[in-house]
Amino acid sequence: MANFGGHAIPGTFFLLYGLWLTVKHVLQHYWRTSQPKGRQGMPPFLRRMEYVEGGFKIFASFVGMMVEQFVVDGPHARLYDRENSSWVKLMNWQHSTMYLFFGISGIVLIASVRTKRVPVGADRLALSLALFVEGFLFLYHVHGREPLDAHVHTLLLYAVFAGSASTMLEVFIRNNILLELFKADMFMLQGSWFYQVGVVLYPLNGDKWDLKQHDNMMFVTMCFCWHLALSLILVSFTASIVWLTTTRFSAKGRDVEIGMRNTSSKTSSQKALLEESDEE
Amino acid sequence: MANFGGHAIPGTFFLLYGLWLTVKHVLQHYWRTSQPKGRQGMPPFLRRMEYVEGGFKIFASFVGMMVEQFVVDGPHARLYDRENSSWVKLMNWQHSTMYLFFGISGIVLIASVRTKRVPVGADRLALSLALFVEGFLFLYHVHGREPLDAHVHTLLLYAVFAGSASTMLEVFIRNNILLELFKADMFMLQGSWFYQVGVVLYPLNGDKWDLKQHDNMMFVTMCFCWHLALSLILVSFTASIVWLTTTRFSAKGRDVEIGMRNTSSKTSSQKALLEESDEE
Amino acid sequence: MANFGGHAIPGTFFLLYGLWLTVKHVLQHYWRTSQPKGRQGMPPFLRRMEYVEGGFKIFASFVGMMVEQFVVDGPHARLYDRENSSWVKLMNWQHSTMYLFFGISGIVLIASVRTKRVPVGADRLALSLALFVEGFLFLYHVHGREPLDAHVHTLLLYAVFAGSASTMLEVFIRNNILLELFKADMFMLQGSWFYQVGVVLYPLNGDKWDLKQHDNMMFVTMCFCWHLALSLILVSFTASIVWLTTTRFSAKGRDVEIGMRNTSSKTSSQKALLEESDEE
Amino acid sequence: MANFGGHAIPGTFFLLYGLWLTVKHVLQHYWRTSQPKGRQGMPPFLRRMEYVEGGFKIFASFVGMMVEQFVVDGPHARLYDRENSSWVKLMNWQHSTMYLFFGISGIVLIASVRTKRVPVGADRLALSLALFVEGFLFLYHVHGREPLDAHVHTLLLYAVFAGSASTMLEVFIRNNILLELFKADMFMLQGSWFYQVGVVLYPLNGDKWDLKQHDNMMFVTMCFCWHLALSLILVSFTASIVWLTTTRFSAKGRDVEIGMRNTSSKTSSQKALLEESDEE
Repeated sequence: MANFGGHAIPGTFFLLYGLWLTVKHVLQHYWRTSQPKGRQGMPPFLRRMEYVEGGFKIFASFVGMMVEQFVVDGPHARLYDRENSSWVKLMNWQHSTMYLFFGISGIVLIASVRTKRVPVGADRLALSLALFVEGFLFLYHVHGREPLDAHVHTLLLYAVFAGSASTMLEVFIRNNILLELFKADMFMLQGSWFYQVGVVLYPLNGDKWDLKQHDNMMFVTMCFCWHLALSLILVSFTASIVWLTTTRFSAKGRDVEIGMRNTSSKTSSQKALLEESDEE
Repeated sequence: MANFGGHAIPGTFFLLYGLWLTVKHVLQHYWRTSQPKGRQGMPPFLRRMEYVEGGFKIFASFVGMMVEQFVVDGPHARLYDRENSSWVKLMNWQHSTMYLFFGISGIVLIASVRTKRVPVGADRLALSLALFVEGFLFLYHVHGREPLDAHVHTLLLYAVFAGSASTMLEVFIRNNILLELFKADMFMLQGSWFYQVGVVLYPLNGDKWDLKQHDNMMFVTMCFCWHLALSLILVSFTASIVWLTTTRFSAKGRDVEIGMRNTSSKTSSQKALLEESDEE
Repeated sequence: MANFGGHAIPGTFFLLYGLWLTVKHVLQHYWRTSQPKGRQGMPPFLRRMEYVEGGFKIFASFVGMMVEQFVVDGPHARLYDRENSSWVKLMNWQHSTMYLFFGISGIVLIASVRTKRVPVGADRLALSLALFVEGFLFLYHVHGREPLDAHVHTLLLYAVFAGSASTMLEVFIRNNILLELFKADMFMLQGSWFYQVGVVLYPLNGDKWDLKQHDNMMFVTMCFCWHLALSLILVSFTASIVWLTTTRFSAKGRDVEIGMRNTSSKTSSQKALLEESDEE
Repeated sequence: MANFGGHAIPGTFFLLYGLWLTVKHVLQHYWRTSQPKGRQGMPPFLRRMEYVEGGFKIFASFVGMMVEQFVVDGPHARLYDRENSSWVKLMNWQHSTMYLFFGISGIVLIASVRTKRVPVGADRLALSLALFVEGFLFLYHVHGREPLDAHVHTLLLYAVFAGSASTMLEVFIRNNILLELFKADMFMLQGSWFYQVGVVLYPLNGDKWDLKQHDNMMFVTMCFCWHLALSLILVSFTASIVWLTTTRFSAKGRDVEIGMRNTSSKTSSQKALLEESDEE
């Protein structure tokens, strides 16, 4: 990961995952609010989205682990080098560990959609743990670096742990669209901040940043807030578009193939439900 | 901000905002308790208050950003000075960033009053984030100052983060008058403490405080508690006056122009409701 | 306070207050569980207990403040000595500040029993703030002392802040007997630990403790756990006695003067309610 | 405890306790979901499990305390050695204190199963306190050790305090199978980590670990995450087996001796309940 690309790849993944979560949760929220009370099953389309998400997580984390292990200068699944009495490529092992937990969260997600036997909220707990482990490994990763280097990673931890905490809250406060969008936002923030870390540590134009200058640290702190603001705008924008599209779409076409229930009295009953939605 | 006035201006703003929040939330609470259960809409008068608050926040934060940028010795929207390889007036940029988030919270407030599509509680989340960002920037701002200087700013952070946390709680525990008044109180405390910081760092009578003396730090800690006590008294006092005035007012004049529902059986039914209000 | 007596007096107060809270909350719990659902008013006897508690707090904190100010070597309400450019007896001022907040919590307690206009939970918030202020002042009090001296005060803070946090929780989770007894327990722990602090810093037999020895610190940490165990036993014991006495008392005498409702079918209906009480 | 065995014994205990908790809570969960709403009593079999658990805890902690005190080089109930003015075997006293609190939690568990007079949740509060005291004593135990030694103990504290926090949450959020399994998982993690601590500090093959090497610390941090992953898999696996066994068992044999209610319409009504269980 010691180059710009090594930060841009996870950054892109997290950004896209944040976008995906925004879209998914807005669709789920639309479904919840347009359903009469009591009905709680998920329509096939939304179930399929969960399968896709879970499957992708399992696949991507498996590929990630393989790449980290069997890349040219990787550890090739060797952990300890007896000859030199030293650990082999601990950094790659750490990244593999992170991927492992995202993989587990994918498995739990699929399991909890497939069967009612998985306790409710287990998928969110697994995702929260994956984020926690990521942050936990980063935390002891930062030790003994240059001030600015440590600082940009510390800022990343704010996004990671805030995401972990809000996902943990979702275990107990389910189907709260605000919490779900906040989680999506934290993934986006994490993604865009990965890019920023790449820019600061491995600048593309070659001008090295002074890793000890206090002004650089002040700027970077402020810059993190700008990323937060941008991610908030991005999430709101995406959510609005998805919401408006879904509303218009399901108002026009009666027989929507995405499997959402669609009685002829829908648009009006739906309005009534939206009217009441702030009483929840 | 490096003078007394630079602390008195935000202090005044926060004090007045705390007062405004006290008045607003007591009126909202009056409305809630005097309504029969089930009815949840907000009367036009209270909606208008939200618009005024949101509009003012947007306006004030826009003006604030402009002033910070285009004041004589400001950065004039220049961020990096290539010639000297240094950041331009980072302090002004930091303040602009703080204003930006209060501006965002104003936009979200108006949006959430206008349309039901904004998730419930989004306005509180936005305000909580604005306070968090303020505290977050202050946190890394305090680094490397004289002990007393750092300490008075640290004390400010207690008010800021307590306000942020209680506003975050309001996302989940809505319409709890105690939480709302606590938030108002934290704004007042922050406002009055800004004055105190001004007095300590830029004393009006010119007698400089010894920034290293331990006794000064002990006094300042205690003084923060006095500000807390005063703000509690101020909030209770304001809330009582608003409550009593509203009760008397709506009991006398039948046809209140503020748009509150006013049936002839109001005063009695309202009493009954108050009687029950501790069961919530 | 720089002697054994100065620690024994607050210790005694806190111990007795913990006992009082145990008794009060068990009686309130008995009343709640023996009432049919829906009835929520408090009987005159329990209201009188609240008045006594509030009144005593106001009286004791007023006396405390007066004593701290006008004792022979006190500050006599003088805060700053212009001649020597120094603060006058800051320790006494700090103690006065602590008393002030307990006084405020007494006022709020009485107000919230007298009138329904005080928001529900305000008394608990006030008590929580009083404990927070006590801990907050202690926190900056400990700075720069000998290791063992600092450590015994830090341990005190565990009891103080745990009490503050659990009382804050009571604002939202009301009438939970476990939380109420935990609060009482934290007061007892605080009280008994005050005695221990006195014993460590001002031993009665004159054998000074070595304030730097590591073993002493280890012992003191463990000793704090013993105090916790003892306070738990004391609270359980007191609560059991009060509960058993009340049950027997109200079963024997039909017409209890303490004003609790007493229908002839009580004992049986009460049993039924206890049977159900774990469903809450 | 200064050898491998001294870490393997508590490790084994905690591992087995984690397994026991998994089994117990899955059985309780099965009972809850297979009962019609309203019925809340516990069947004799589950009550007996609680008695066994409580009794074992009391017995084991009593034996533990006796061993720590009266082992050959133990303190033999002497706390202070007046001749050498030093504390006697503080380590043994600390372990005794830890056992004491687990013993108390056993007593509270039995009491809360026997009588309805013990407040609901008291058993969980007692267990949470036992874990807190364990972590609290460890926290001040770690001071001034070699970096790696301190680090492996710090990692242990994550499991201990996470367990304490989640058990505390159970006081308020009762009968949540996910929280209960998480608690079981934290016990397992603690147990397996005790083994790891033994391996690191007292390696069986005799190759001493370098207690100052940074790479060892990085490995150990990552290794903790692997233990977490393994414990998660172990808990899920155990829970699935118990659940499947119970379901099959109670479907085949009509008249189950474990005392679970067993009407002829059970299997179908149970399915219906499972269908609804995600609405909770």
